[in-house]
Amino acid sequence: LTDYVGKASESLQLIRKHKPLIHNVTNLVVMNTVANVLLAVGASPVMAYAAEEVEDVVSRANALVLNTGTLSPFWVEGMLKAGQQAMAFNIPVILDPVGVGISRFRTDTTGHILDTVKIQAVKANASEILSLESRSVSSIGVDSIHSVEQAAIAGKRMASALDATIAITGVTDLVISANRTVKIKSGHRLMPYVTGMGCAASALIGAFISVDPDPFTATVSALCLFAFAGEMAGTSAKGPGSFETRLLDALYQVTPERVKQHCWIEDLEGS
Amino acid sequence: LTDYVGKASESLQLIRKHKPLIHNVTNLVVMNTVANVLLAVGASPVMAYAAEEVEDVVSRANALVLNTGTLSPFWVEGMLKAGQQAMAFNIPVILDPVGVGISRFRTDTTGHILDTVKIQAVKANASEILSLESRSVSSIGVDSIHSVEQAAIAGKRMASALDATIAITGVTDLVISANRTVKIKSGHRLMPYVTGMGCAASALIGAFISVDPDPFTATVSALCLFAFAGEMAGTSAKGPGSFETRLLDALYQVTPERVKQHCWIEDLEGS
Amino acid sequence: LTDYVGKASESLQLIRKHKPLIHNVTNLVVMNTVANVLLAVGASPVMAYAAEEVEDVVSRANALVLNTGTLSPFWVEGMLKAGQQAMAFNIPVILDPVGVGISRFRTDTTGHILDTVKIQAVKANASEILSLESRSVSSIGVDSIHSVEQAAIAGKRMASALDATIAITGVTDLVISANRTVKIKSGHRLMPYVTGMGCAASALIGAFISVDPDPFTATVSALCLFAFAGEMAGTSAKGPGSFETRLLDALYQVTPERVKQHCWIEDLEGS
Repeated sequence: LTDYVGKASESLQLIRKHKPLIHNVTNLVVMNTVANVLLAVGASPVMAYAAEEVEDVVSRANALVLNTGTLSPFWVEGMLKAGQQAMAFNIPVILDPVGVGISRFRTDTTGHILDTVKIQAVKANASEILSLESRSVSSIGVDSIHSVEQAAIAGKRMASALDATIAITGVTDLVISANRTVKIKSGHRLMPYVTGMGCAASALIGAFISVDPDPFTATVSALCLFAFAGEMAGTSAKGPGSFETRLLDALYQVTPERVKQHCWIEDLEGS
Repeated sequence: LTDYVGKASESLQLIRKHKPLIHNVTNLVVMNTVANVLLAVGASPVMAYAAEEVEDVVSRANALVLNTGTLSPFWVEGMLKAGQQAMAFNIPVILDPVGVGISRFRTDTTGHILDTVKIQAVKANASEILSLESRSVSSIGVDSIHSVEQAAIAGKRMASALDATIAITGVTDLVISANRTVKIKSGHRLMPYVTGMGCAASALIGAFISVDPDPFTATVSALCLFAFAGEMAGTSAKGPGSFETRLLDALYQVTPERVKQHCWIEDLEGS
Repeated sequence: LTDYVGKASESLQLIRKHKPLIHNVTNLVVMNTVANVLLAVGASPVMAYAAEEVEDVVSRANALVLNTGTLSPFWVEGMLKAGQQAMAFNIPVILDPVGVGISRFRTDTTGHILDTVKIQAVKANASEILSLESRSVSSIGVDSIHSVEQAAIAGKRMASALDATIAITGVTDLVISANRTVKIKSGHRLMPYVTGMGCAASALIGAFISVDPDPFTATVSALCLFAFAGEMAGTSAKGPGSFETRLLDALYQVTPERVKQHCWIEDLEGS
């Protein structure tokens, strides 16, 4: 049996030791949150999006995270260039297709990324996974209207087709590969009331994948650490404002030992 | 007599029930704050600005909020397209003309928006209202150098000319339509020390207008809820940092009952 | 002997009295943080970057802060226009060359700014100072891999060549001019775990330089106030989340008297 929490604990130690450089081409709403989450856990974030410099930047990064919130053509150009260069340098790429399905532009852009860049892990909510797989324009906003379970079959198909790890986040999270499935108890009921929590989780996958070459265990590690930090934050939070503050504190404070003792993973398939 | 606080209380319940989708084309400084304020109150924010997708996005939104801070030509194009589509779909539009008067570009842009998009409500500080009405370049920055009272006459003229609700925010807030005027006690002395508070108030007007077809009562509801949440936050805040954290907590915690009991509105004209 | 802390105390009083307008062309990650830090200390921030309006905006500003994080050609155009206009209006300019050395584009852009805009003060970490001086592409990310001391000689050369104040920030800070050097005890070990702290320090230099025409003492004042506020914040912070909240509170609460009593500066050369 894979010792998922042991792996998460070990990877957290490695992140704090090596401070991997995570290159984020992410959206305008969450840049600050994503940078702070990466710093709190011990990684080193860099944000750069211009086609004029993404190749230089990604070349020295340990992982690349592409996030499609607040898209524009200029950013798409940067994402594609960064993705191509990451492939050339064997740097792992994570895709967070924020809002796919909300417009033809976002659906086409995420489709184009999937067609031209090798992705190691995708993290999305259920509605986004369904839009991403069917390449349709359909969801009502950026928040999911489907349950994680409703998107599990589409996620499995994508995992096989892309040879990638697919994480579907919601009340519980599912992490899916061609032959493995794991369920993670999600963090706290206040998380959906704070913007950028999903984007921060994707960035954390970037941090873990940079110290763990298996995208599946890296994704499981990132999501179970994030869920545990959310639980820690939630014990004393009075609302979404204090929750976010305490989440950053928790990510900084959490020890590899506590991860090993407290993270919760249910192994559904494979090991 | 209009039961303003009763209406505010009822609308807050409807926002939490229906989670209206609020499309914001807002400035780079406050995007995170605006998204968090909308989530805290129970609405669902979406940020999108590219001309390539704003029509798709606004078509499924319940309100559109245009905010002119950190303008650029690319964003102006997106704002105008979003505004045109909102008109075509009968989606209410709120304008927050941040920094109008600080440059010819901002004054011309806000003028062009007013000339081509039907606006239901404008929210601005006193200096911005004066610049907006006279289409002049004159203020010294983005903070007001005029009192709310000094801008009341200009606000009244604009309310009639545009057939819109005009909110002038400051130490106290005035909400003005062609035949009604209401005064709202502003939240807390720390509010001007936190960036994005005015922009957050405009976004809240978007949330209330999506559940209350009368722009006047929706604007009054949003501003009196915001003021009350500010008061709640201010009781234990030690400075602007803890104030913002507690404001988000307060917006999440506040109940429709407390709104009915504690919100304060002075009816100056009409009812 | 120069009474550095006396000057810092006096300048803080002047900032709170005059609320200087600080024009920031800064990066997308830290805009919110920078605005909040400036507001907390008593200044009035304005963010504008489009070539279409920077000349109007900077003309009424008391200082201009250029920050090269998240660069793009459109922003470079705005920075250069703002810098030219600032020179024409005798408005002091501060440069924070975030990430110089991470790409040819950033190194060339910062070099071009230094060649065409008169800069009063540069604030950077050690690796950035070394890249900036040698105009090379070399650092591994946006966090420094060199000690402040390793960059001191390059900083001294730049101070003479540019006739400017050079601040090198790290575990301790050095402020260097052609004939003066001062050492400042840095704030708190949590500061590197919060994004935008360096950018906020640069913005504070903008606030102090707008009330103190000597860029050297203005830079010393800003950095020693920031370090002291960091210490205040650190006493009760549990991690980077609560640290940032408390730092904003501290900047708002700190009195000129406490600055005079508690700020710590070591005079290494000149006076």
